Amino acid sequence: MPETTIDVLDKGFIALDGALASDLAVVNGARVSFNQESDELSERDEGLIRFLIRERHGSPFEHGYFRFLVKAPLFVVREHHRHRAGHSYNEWSGRYSKMEAEFYVPDNVRTQVGKPGSYAFEPVDDAIREATRQEIEENAARAFETYERLLEQGVAKEVARTVLPLSTYTKYYWSCNPRSLMHFCGLRNHESAQFEIRQYAAAAESFLERLMPITHAAFVGNERRAP
Amino acid sequence: MPETTIDVLDKGFIALDGALASDLAVVNGARVSFNQESDELSERDEGLIRFLIRERHGSPFEHGYFRFLVKAPLFVVREHHRHRAGHSYNEWSGRYSKMEAEFYVPDNVRTQVGKPGSYAFEPVDDAIREATRQEIEENAARAFETYERLLEQGVAKEVARTVLPLSTYTKYYWSCNPRSLMHFCGLRNHESAQFEIRQYAAAAESFLERLMPITHAAFVGNERRAP
Amino acid sequence: MPETTIDVLDKGFIALDGALASDLAVVNGARVSFNQESDELSERDEGLIRFLIRERHGSPFEHGYFRFLVKAPLFVVREHHRHRAGHSYNEWSGRYSKMEAEFYVPDNVRTQVGKPGSYAFEPVDDAIREATRQEIEENAARAFETYERLLEQGVAKEVARTVLPLSTYTKYYWSCNPRSLMHFCGLRNHESAQFEIRQYAAAAESFLERLMPITHAAFVGNERRAP
Amino acid sequence: MPETTIDVLDKGFIALDGALASDLAVVNGARVSFNQESDELSERDEGLIRFLIRERHGSPFEHGYFRFLVKAPLFVVREHHRHRAGHSYNEWSGRYSKMEAEFYVPDNVRTQVGKPGSYAFEPVDDAIREATRQEIEENAARAFETYERLLEQGVAKEVARTVLPLSTYTKYYWSCNPRSLMHFCGLRNHESAQFEIRQYAAAAESFLERLMPITHAAFVGNERRAP
Repeated sequence: MPETTIDVLDKGFIALDGALASDLAVVNGARVSFNQESDELSERDEGLIRFLIRERHGSPFEHGYFRFLVKAPLFVVREHHRHRAGHSYNEWSGRYSKMEAEFYVPDNVRTQVGKPGSYAFEPVDDAIREATRQEIEENAARAFETYERLLEQGVAKEVARTVLPLSTYTKYYWSCNPRSLMHFCGLRNHESAQFEIRQYAAAAESFLERLMPITHAAFVGNERRAP
Repeated sequence: MPETTIDVLDKGFIALDGALASDLAVVNGARVSFNQESDELSERDEGLIRFLIRERHGSPFEHGYFRFLVKAPLFVVREHHRHRAGHSYNEWSGRYSKMEAEFYVPDNVRTQVGKPGSYAFEPVDDAIREATRQEIEENAARAFETYERLLEQGVAKEVARTVLPLSTYTKYYWSCNPRSLMHFCGLRNHESAQFEIRQYAAAAESFLERLMPITHAAFVGNERRAP
Repeated sequence: MPETTIDVLDKGFIALDGALASDLAVVNGARVSFNQESDELSERDEGLIRFLIRERHGSPFEHGYFRFLVKAPLFVVREHHRHRAGHSYNEWSGRYSKMEAEFYVPDNVRTQVGKPGSYAFEPVDDAIREATRQEIEENAARAFETYERLLEQGVAKEVARTVLPLSTYTKYYWSCNPRSLMHFCGLRNHESAQFEIRQYAAAAESFLERLMPITHAAFVGNERRAP
Repeated sequence: MPETTIDVLDKGFIALDGALASDLAVVNGARVSFNQESDELSERDEGLIRFLIRERHGSPFEHGYFRFLVKAPLFVVREHHRHRAGHSYNEWSGRYSKMEAEFYVPDNVRTQVGKPGSYAFEPVDDAIREATRQEIEENAARAFETYERLLEQGVAKEVARTVLPLSTYTKYYWSCNPRSLMHFCGLRNHESAQFEIRQYAAAAESFLERLMPITHAAFVGNERRAP
């Protein structure tokens, strides 16, 4: 059986918690327009899927379901949760339970070059890379010590958590359909997306590829423009 | 195995074409707030589901999926497709293929009493009932003859279909999640809903009851007010 | 002052009932990413709008509002109300009040040529055109007579209306934002859309052009592909 | 003219940037069901609005528009942006521009008592309050120094920002309709919501009250349960 959990970044993951998704459901969603139905995928059906993606007929791609459990840093989650239509989320709450001392420390420390609209990123040299990693770790450690001191004094978790950095890891369930998943991947598994969320989007996309190979190939062949 | 197709009205049906839905997924969607997870449903979990419904915490009910194939008259579909958030549809199109000569002829012919906001309906007497059924059938038959004459003269299907009555049966795929299904049932399996859509909503609700019995009981116990 | 009501088809219209929409709001929605704000539209801002459309950055186009009152035949409304995200509707209900004897009778009677995915339409000859118009009118008149007879016998409006054809005119309020309006126009003011809904979409698009000329020009320049 | 900017928390605000919203539009959205229209609000119309709220007929409340500019700490924004249907956002991005050294330091330092589902909060004593405020300020100041050091070394803004705490202020445009605004206020201007977001929700609700006084009164009279 293929793995259903993919490690992402230094301490995160994306796990397929459940799915009901197939290329066939797309075809039947489209063929019902003609009062027709397919029992298995034919070559003609594969052409239909490519046609639907290319011509932006998106609704047949909504008849499927993916549920993921994701562990990611807060700054990634902030970008992820901007996706609204066809996306559902439930997240670990710092109001209700104590957060854990897990923080993202990047391997890929980079510098930004270019202008808005056409940024590019290049690796920093080793000395800056190490200094940066140390700064980020120390910042997180200090913040967590502050967090724990506040909790010890009886300060409410919802107040104490405000000291935690955006590198803090959290966890959440994420449900979506094939169409909304493609929209997410089209924007976030893209060179203009931030490196970190792109790793999650690439991992999520690999599950699309496993369960809906024809749809995925058509999506990639359409420059990852979701229908 | 329980039946997955339920006959509705004189010629319609609602069939469960696929589902990935459980009370457990609701519980885990809620418990992730506390960084906790359940492997099987406990009594405490059942209380949690009732709490979530009562307090209108709706998002944990979005981590599931139902896909139906529905055959219904157009005036029912018009009401159904008003439901937007968390609902996906693909329908047989009279632009692309010829419609069939199937029309809804009501058993339940009724008269309307009362005022806007508090309508009630009472059966008509047998003579009016039979006359009404005959009028509706003849109207449909005449309309379909017109439809076929226009098609024979080469008029485009998309033009010819405009003569068909709202009693014409159509078919469509419908995908939703447990929360959006409850919203639909709360409004449409309700005494203020039109009799015909209520039969579809009651049938759809029976699938919710089969797959998510605790959620369904909590929903009914909350006067069918969806969270 | 420019007209706010545009006649569409033989008896329909689309009226701008209210709007708060400007190119400037798009620019500020985008510039807030940089913690910047514009007081009036510069040439650089116009370039930004074109960039946003081209690169499919859609969210800045959601900070505006259009409210329309529309009168259209039911088969048009069925297509229109399939648009969900960012669209709101409230329609005249045949459950609550008597429908009126107004029906669409097409000038543009056409025949369909070609295959699914690449249909084309050509006018029918004059004799068929006149025969078709007469058939459609007679069909509607007979259906309305049936409708009235049923009402006279005390049959509930919600039952009687099922005899009415898809050519019946109805009315509804439609609210949307600039982004969802562009999605509607991109799909429906398009050669693959049915002629009748295309007339409504073209009229709606003319209001976008009036209030947001730069956005509209960028949209058209992007082959009417909404961001 | 009434103020359109309301200060919230120690350094935040919510400003009404534009609105097209009225009780009359709700009434007309509902009355179109009967093919009727009101030119001005009657007493009967006010009763209609109360009926719609009570019976959860939500769609007539979607025919209006509010656009806000908000300045709030990140932990508030994370809660706010979970609201999806009928809500649009564009936010200052730490990827594209440098964040500023503004952080939330609570006056209302509290301790949490009670159990999940029925938490309550009580003020801490003055010594703990002052110590907490100082910890939070120092934590933010240290984090911002780290942030600036990383930027000086050429580290990309999108990497450096990960050290910033959840108390950091950001800014965003927020568009919504009266229905989605009521949903937000019903959940967030509520005793179970976190104190900080509640201040924003109360301020947002005051704009609803100004522009749609009848709707607002009906909403409050319905225990702030949005339709």
